[in-house]
Amino acid sequence: MSHLKLIILGASSAIPLSHRYPSAQFLSLANRHFLIDCGEGTQIRLRQENIGFGRIDHILVSHLHGDHFFGLIPLLSTLHLLDRRKPIKIYGPKALKELINSHLSLSNARIGFPIEFIPLDFERKQLIFEDSGVKVHSFPLNHSVPCCGFLFEEKSSPRKMKKGKIAEYGIPFSEIPSIKNGAAWADQFGKLIDNHELTDPPPPPLSYAYCTDTKPVNHLDRYFKGVDLLYHEATFTEEHRERASQTQHSTAAQAAGMAKLTESKHLLLGHFSTRYPKLSDLKEEAAAIFKNCDLVKEGMRIEVFSGDRLPKISLAEVR
Amino acid sequence: MSHLKLIILGASSAIPLSHRYPSAQFLSLANRHFLIDCGEGTQIRLRQENIGFGRIDHILVSHLHGDHFFGLIPLLSTLHLLDRRKPIKIYGPKALKELINSHLSLSNARIGFPIEFIPLDFERKQLIFEDSGVKVHSFPLNHSVPCCGFLFEEKSSPRKMKKGKIAEYGIPFSEIPSIKNGAAWADQFGKLIDNHELTDPPPPPLSYAYCTDTKPVNHLDRYFKGVDLLYHEATFTEEHRERASQTQHSTAAQAAGMAKLTESKHLLLGHFSTRYPKLSDLKEEAAAIFKNCDLVKEGMRIEVFSGDRLPKISLAEVR
Repeated sequence: MSHLKLIILGASSAIPLSHRYPSAQFLSLANRHFLIDCGEGTQIRLRQENIGFGRIDHILVSHLHGDHFFGLIPLLSTLHLLDRRKPIKIYGPKALKELINSHLSLSNARIGFPIEFIPLDFERKQLIFEDSGVKVHSFPLNHSVPCCGFLFEEKSSPRKMKKGKIAEYGIPFSEIPSIKNGAAWADQFGKLIDNHELTDPPPPPLSYAYCTDTKPVNHLDRYFKGVDLLYHEATFTEEHRERASQTQHSTAAQAAGMAKLTESKHLLLGHFSTRYPKLSDLKEEAAAIFKNCDLVKEGMRIEVFSGDRLPKISLAEVR
Repeated sequence: MSHLKLIILGASSAIPLSHRYPSAQFLSLANRHFLIDCGEGTQIRLRQENIGFGRIDHILVSHLHGDHFFGLIPLLSTLHLLDRRKPIKIYGPKALKELINSHLSLSNARIGFPIEFIPLDFERKQLIFEDSGVKVHSFPLNHSVPCCGFLFEEKSSPRKMKKGKIAEYGIPFSEIPSIKNGAAWADQFGKLIDNHELTDPPPPPLSYAYCTDTKPVNHLDRYFKGVDLLYHEATFTEEHRERASQTQHSTAAQAAGMAKLTESKHLLLGHFSTRYPKLSDLKEEAAAIFKNCDLVKEGMRIEVFSGDRLPKISLAEVR
């Protein structure tokens, strides 16, 4: 079944607090798994959320600010100690590869499994991963250092046979794949049966866009449109709009504007500055512009089943 | 008052678990503060234990295995974001300095306060810090990479005037410092009053030794003797003595042997392998050889007041 599940590992901005961890999310889409950003303590948060390390095959790092990657080398080190053999794909700024290598060489350490490094393009939208079920693009954001957002899309699945039709028309199994792909069927009397009589449309493919850190990108809708879930940073409220602009971050209102522009179905806000003890102000500010929005929090699980009007959101207390 | 307080930030060995953090301790001795080792998540653990970042002036890193220093650069980065200006002293292997510099340069980051780096000597005992109240030595341990232990010692304080003696003998205040330092006093008739009639001895100075990671060091008593508190790694039980030897770690029994050899007053065991779900086995093994011992745990506070027979140990649940 078409299914998207996002687990929030960290939702804080640059400075972590006692229970607010820096950026990290674990995304499952069509049974593929992606670790998105990897702030300090990500391996501990993965354990707290019972996410098996064996499921980590792709790690995406948006940019080289520490709160987005300080947990990467510790995680790789633990995977090595746990005797991982299978390769891992790391997507990030080119300097991240040098950083890992320099770190290993200066600390006289090694990683015993292959790392395939995919450098990000900060000039244009780029296909960074594709297989039979999903594709992933990076696209440039607008921050104080080169930074990319990520777009995860399920591929369309085949149409579904309607109940009873195989028996009704005596369709041989060998013909089913082409019918699922839209072909018509000629019955034993040569009568052409329209594909719509035989199949139902597949569930619409799910999609997720991740945008942090960035000030509002005016042409964001050129990179994606109509995603089921948009995560957009909301470091500040409008009260600190100038500070947001100086530091190339967004306010909650600006994040909501981006959700509107891209016609996203649901907006998740995160990467909150530690200056706001009452995060509900950020939600109110965004909701006035874009109603379907939520604040993320460590331990939150956001699930979308294809065809659902709204995501299911549950919160497991951080243990 | 003479006082030693140790807060356990992390007690795990190489692999952290959901509530077992890698090595880090916060020591207060005679009002001086030392952060000893700095595994991943140390800044989060400092916040959880309500330890103000302003108190961190000395960070000691025993060796370059990640579970002892992965939290250092993230912590320095946060101190920078919090606008720290005052210098910090970092004691560690020479390569740690290169590692910090290479990291900053590759991630295009900077630290806005001075770092004084004190390289450790892995050949001999070395005085690495001294002021009017305490002195700190490093000494070589025996691990798979160069590694140092640390010895923290209060300096003797002056003797204390006995109650009523100043009035009884009409001693002018100007003479008190020399009497506190052991001088006798000639009264108005020229009669010499012995110092022991006038003063009481000061509380014995407190001391703490930190030994991790290491296999047993046969001549450890050459580096220190009779400390109030010895922290010694006990990664394994005797059942895995061979594994301990291969990886140059210690068993709980060997740690107890080191406490005996150095005539330490109390032994703290830590750096446990994640293979032991029941840590009480490690304690039993050590206690059979050296009675005064405890297992450390995240959130544990160990306090010694000079003259106490036993340390006071309390455990604040990790929040």
